[in-house]
Amino acid sequence: MTTGEENSITDVPGVSVGHVTLIQGAGPLTPGRGPVRTGVTVILPHEGNPYKEKLRAGVHVQNGAGELTGALQVMEWGIIETPIALTNTLNVGLVHDAIVEHMLEQNPDIGDRADVMLPIVGECDDSYLNDIRGRHVKREHVLEAFRVAGRKVIEGSVGAGTGMSALGFKAGVGTASRKTASSLGGYVLGALVVANFGNSPECDLLVDGVPVGRELRSVVNRPRKDGSIITVIATNAPVNSSQLRRISARVPLALGRVGSVSSNSSGDISVAFSTAGGISFPDTDSASMEAVNAGVLDELFRATIEASEEAILNSIFMSDTMKGRDDNVSRGLPIDDVMKMMRKYGRL
Amino acid sequence: MTTGEENSITDVPGVSVGHVTLIQGAGPLTPGRGPVRTGVTVILPHEGNPYKEKLRAGVHVQNGAGELTGALQVMEWGIIETPIALTNTLNVGLVHDAIVEHMLEQNPDIGDRADVMLPIVGECDDSYLNDIRGRHVKREHVLEAFRVAGRKVIEGSVGAGTGMSALGFKAGVGTASRKTASSLGGYVLGALVVANFGNSPECDLLVDGVPVGRELRSVVNRPRKDGSIITVIATNAPVNSSQLRRISARVPLALGRVGSVSSNSSGDISVAFSTAGGISFPDTDSASMEAVNAGVLDELFRATIEASEEAILNSIFMSDTMKGRDDNVSRGLPIDDVMKMMRKYGRL
Amino acid sequence: MTTGEENSITDVPGVSVGHVTLIQGAGPLTPGRGPVRTGVTVILPHEGNPYKEKLRAGVHVQNGAGELTGALQVMEWGIIETPIALTNTLNVGLVHDAIVEHMLEQNPDIGDRADVMLPIVGECDDSYLNDIRGRHVKREHVLEAFRVAGRKVIEGSVGAGTGMSALGFKAGVGTASRKTASSLGGYVLGALVVANFGNSPECDLLVDGVPVGRELRSVVNRPRKDGSIITVIATNAPVNSSQLRRISARVPLALGRVGSVSSNSSGDISVAFSTAGGISFPDTDSASMEAVNAGVLDELFRATIEASEEAILNSIFMSDTMKGRDDNVSRGLPIDDVMKMMRKYGRL
Amino acid sequence: MTTGEENSITDVPGVSVGHVTLIQGAGPLTPGRGPVRTGVTVILPHEGNPYKEKLRAGVHVQNGAGELTGALQVMEWGIIETPIALTNTLNVGLVHDAIVEHMLEQNPDIGDRADVMLPIVGECDDSYLNDIRGRHVKREHVLEAFRVAGRKVIEGSVGAGTGMSALGFKAGVGTASRKTASSLGGYVLGALVVANFGNSPECDLLVDGVPVGRELRSVVNRPRKDGSIITVIATNAPVNSSQLRRISARVPLALGRVGSVSSNSSGDISVAFSTAGGISFPDTDSASMEAVNAGVLDELFRATIEASEEAILNSIFMSDTMKGRDDNVSRGLPIDDVMKMMRKYGRL
Repeated sequence: MTTGEENSITDVPGVSVGHVTLIQGAGPLTPGRGPVRTGVTVILPHEGNPYKEKLRAGVHVQNGAGELTGALQVMEWGIIETPIALTNTLNVGLVHDAIVEHMLEQNPDIGDRADVMLPIVGECDDSYLNDIRGRHVKREHVLEAFRVAGRKVIEGSVGAGTGMSALGFKAGVGTASRKTASSLGGYVLGALVVANFGNSPECDLLVDGVPVGRELRSVVNRPRKDGSIITVIATNAPVNSSQLRRISARVPLALGRVGSVSSNSSGDISVAFSTAGGISFPDTDSASMEAVNAGVLDELFRATIEASEEAILNSIFMSDTMKGRDDNVSRGLPIDDVMKMMRKYGRL
Repeated sequence: MTTGEENSITDVPGVSVGHVTLIQGAGPLTPGRGPVRTGVTVILPHEGNPYKEKLRAGVHVQNGAGELTGALQVMEWGIIETPIALTNTLNVGLVHDAIVEHMLEQNPDIGDRADVMLPIVGECDDSYLNDIRGRHVKREHVLEAFRVAGRKVIEGSVGAGTGMSALGFKAGVGTASRKTASSLGGYVLGALVVANFGNSPECDLLVDGVPVGRELRSVVNRPRKDGSIITVIATNAPVNSSQLRRISARVPLALGRVGSVSSNSSGDISVAFSTAGGISFPDTDSASMEAVNAGVLDELFRATIEASEEAILNSIFMSDTMKGRDDNVSRGLPIDDVMKMMRKYGRL
Repeated sequence: MTTGEENSITDVPGVSVGHVTLIQGAGPLTPGRGPVRTGVTVILPHEGNPYKEKLRAGVHVQNGAGELTGALQVMEWGIIETPIALTNTLNVGLVHDAIVEHMLEQNPDIGDRADVMLPIVGECDDSYLNDIRGRHVKREHVLEAFRVAGRKVIEGSVGAGTGMSALGFKAGVGTASRKTASSLGGYVLGALVVANFGNSPECDLLVDGVPVGRELRSVVNRPRKDGSIITVIATNAPVNSSQLRRISARVPLALGRVGSVSSNSSGDISVAFSTAGGISFPDTDSASMEAVNAGVLDELFRATIEASEEAILNSIFMSDTMKGRDDNVSRGLPIDDVMKMMRKYGRL
Repeated sequence: MTTGEENSITDVPGVSVGHVTLIQGAGPLTPGRGPVRTGVTVILPHEGNPYKEKLRAGVHVQNGAGELTGALQVMEWGIIETPIALTNTLNVGLVHDAIVEHMLEQNPDIGDRADVMLPIVGECDDSYLNDIRGRHVKREHVLEAFRVAGRKVIEGSVGAGTGMSALGFKAGVGTASRKTASSLGGYVLGALVVANFGNSPECDLLVDGVPVGRELRSVVNRPRKDGSIITVIATNAPVNSSQLRRISARVPLALGRVGSVSSNSSGDISVAFSTAGGISFPDTDSASMEAVNAGVLDELFRATIEASEEAILNSIFMSDTMKGRDDNVSRGLPIDDVMKMMRKYGRL
């Protein structure tokens, strides 16, 4: 399939992404002081106010050893009504509260004449590099992430991805997009991941099917701490909440393609939303909309898998070696070596 | 079935409950200033450190229009490893962060040499009486709730229940317990609810099957704002996580018995845990334990329904009329009238 | 709420029900020969061909100790495309095959130019009265049930309900319906149950909240074998598949109201479908339809609980004492005694 | 990981597999007469009587557009108590009934003094090659499959796999196994699939990451009809039912690795069981057993993915070109061409 213009989740019209990256200090861990290798990433699902113009959504949990606040409501109602934020595990509470604050400012009626809402906050554990006990992501960082959000998405060790590692190498944020053929609607679907999974001794990384990890197994400074992967899928295709649940359920196939075994402690959670068919009523997926047929849905499944796979790979390819707390090192993928391997395996 | 000694969730040995109740101001709503009618309730599952001695657990979602953070992990791993906290909807983030702080203080290894954890925080919407936008439950209130936690559970308009209403009347926190016969193990099972649901015009309250709500339909000052019900079940029976999921799935039958229709916007979520068979390994329900057989399990199902039903009724019977923000009034159940009705319906 | 014209699932325009009742022999069980106390009930969701005009649907599993074939597909696609059949547990295969035969006759394209389909067959265990090993429901009985299907629904010990017992008394098939106010759409919702659950020593039957079972605990010849309850909900309200899943998830609240504890071995499964918004495309819930809003949905939840509760009670009230295999007796509810109790409890 | 002795699901001690293959006639479809290209495969989970010695089990539904009877009970109780049978979609009823008959013969107490049971029957749609309307798998074929069951598993176009195609080529039954290191328990885990999915125009087949399908896109006679994949996982590792559910949930990662997009109409369902810790009590996963820890579980996840991936590939590599009804042709994978490609892509 072809990619969108920027090969980014923001190819879906209206979607924007903001990062705040916190990198400070070096050496031994002093909880509360650092070293700091963390951040926050926010995804705004459209240019308006999501509380007032809600969006259809679905969630899939491949392995629930993680947190995505608001997930139960997405499963029940099939909508989202707030931005989505991603951060480190122990910062979920503070980031949750900051989004509440942001929503209250934007909507003076919430909790007064209008209903309350539940923010969506996902997390991965960056404690291999970061002083996660310090909960360094504060209210002002979240609000700053909203302010800087735009269509240009920086990848790698930024925002929520700052201190993350995946499949044995430094990773972080990655994004990619795909377009369906015009005969299949010409829709755009984008994925954004925070990748922090699969750091097994086996070094499982597959790049387009090539066993890159196996070949690099002897590389030193591989992170051993397993985390999670949160995947956000956006599309402008008219899909209902049931279809969005099924779209989010295709992410595990992408995980398989990059070498994941979805380990016991990996919170492999995905959330998908559509910007089509704005919802003007208060709270459920009931508005009239001609949703895509099975043929287009299959193509959106394919787009989900391709975009998620590439987003994960991008999160690794765009991340350089990082030294963090206690001088722990997560090595960046040695790209020249990988290119040689790709050639050896008949790819370039 | 017979009740436990205190007819409380704390009849399960080791379980303790702490409330902090915040009531301040009167008159028109000034967001951030009040009037305040809210609080926080914490349930400590045993006397030790739940991160170090994890407990088997299960979750059931009857209607997911609410939040229970950590629910996905309980579903996946079948354990809890933190206390459980309940509060108002917009305070979930701050309470979450306070529990993280509490856990970090108690466990200097978390996020350093040991894994991170995910707190369990449930919520209901008390905005009919409370300045929910003010997020008045602060860090110190949560830590205070831990300090005051004990075996004596005050019911009604206290803690997380302070500003809640259910089935047309002032409600709040309620608790009850049941014991299985000694031939069925002599186990204790307790329920604690924060009840804030079912405030429909029909006034659906059933008390032991008697249509009390229907008879009181003309009572004025009935709250109309629908909320949720979070139910916490504790037992000392040796039940595995699958059985605990199934125990938590019996709460909807108690909801039916008090008149609920589990309305669209009601977050009807329950979590059950067992204090039996302490888990010494890191993260899953894999330790050897002879779990109860089907006969005992059926009796625990019965205990769950009876205790949950009574806990809901207690949350109403123990709550007095309260005036809150904008002089909104949630009237306490007129108990003398109810007693007359119970007699009329052949009950007393 | 008011009932439909016939207080039956067939008040939903287009729905019809057919029973074939098999009663033969008496005395000791001779597997394969009898005594026979069983049957089959079919529900036709509309007057047309459901394979060609599919219907939106949802399924809920309160306790999965039972079978509803096709349930996984309903959960995934949100549609049904065949009639629904109910029978005894060991006859599921033969009834399934007979429905396939019926569908193939009706649709010469299935499996040739058109896709295959999966029938929906539910079951309860009638072995307390019936020679269930004999699998006495044959192909011709199913086809006969289709032929006799109509708008008039006989209740009690008929069709799939022939050999069933519930809450300590003879039970079988029951049905009821409710209408929403014209301001809420004026929709009809009907329930049909095959009730075979809750035969515990405690005798839990509640009739409109009155503890009838407790008062009749000393009645002899109470069946002790626990079975299941399959509930079918039909409506003409325009509801999407997600809403139908949620409607089917309200049946447990009705179970609570009649005294069930949803015991370990009770397969408590419900399926709901809508006759609105015919689906002309092949296979998913994607067609445009303005679904009901939250206010109407809440009223449909209420209708589901009321109709299911009454259908269960009707299945008991309409069943007479039956003697079956090995002279096992399931006693009919002593209605005069119940009427006295109802008066004692202030009801009539 | 290393394979088991036979690289087969039957490497798990006690597991046996039986096929009956039905191939008859040629030319135009005459429903009921042929051409016949179908069969049945049975998996016996151990050498004893599974009704009397039940086994822990779990189910995962990646895409529920298919049937696995008994799945709801496995999800609820975490056990299986019958063999597992696989066949074509329209034969589910007859095969179900034949298993009931087999179980009744083996257990004269079922439905008399002992509880009934629910067979597990999975299906794929072989109508591209087979007269599926004819339901040619009869009672005697199922009973014959039980008789011939053994440790040797023939792969390819046999049994339930006879008329199946996957990823654009003739497929059928495949199996593979993996062993954990002795330091991780030395357990065996095996997979058996009936593969009938992914027949998209894109020709998605990946062999060890090599885009074999893409290179062979121009091959003629590719089946276009999409079906399903049923995966059966067996292990002798002591895993509880929750862990077995999670093991079965790793199959989607294998699907991703062979190129599947888990299309709308593909019933992608897996069931896993363990032969360890025999269950002597009647009906739930409650017996005492020290289950594997997280480290071993991760290795079993890896074994599941590797064995499932290889089983799928084996189902294709072991199948020759077949001509079926209406002279439809499903071409066998051109293995010499594939070998050349593998070399081109640096694999051999």
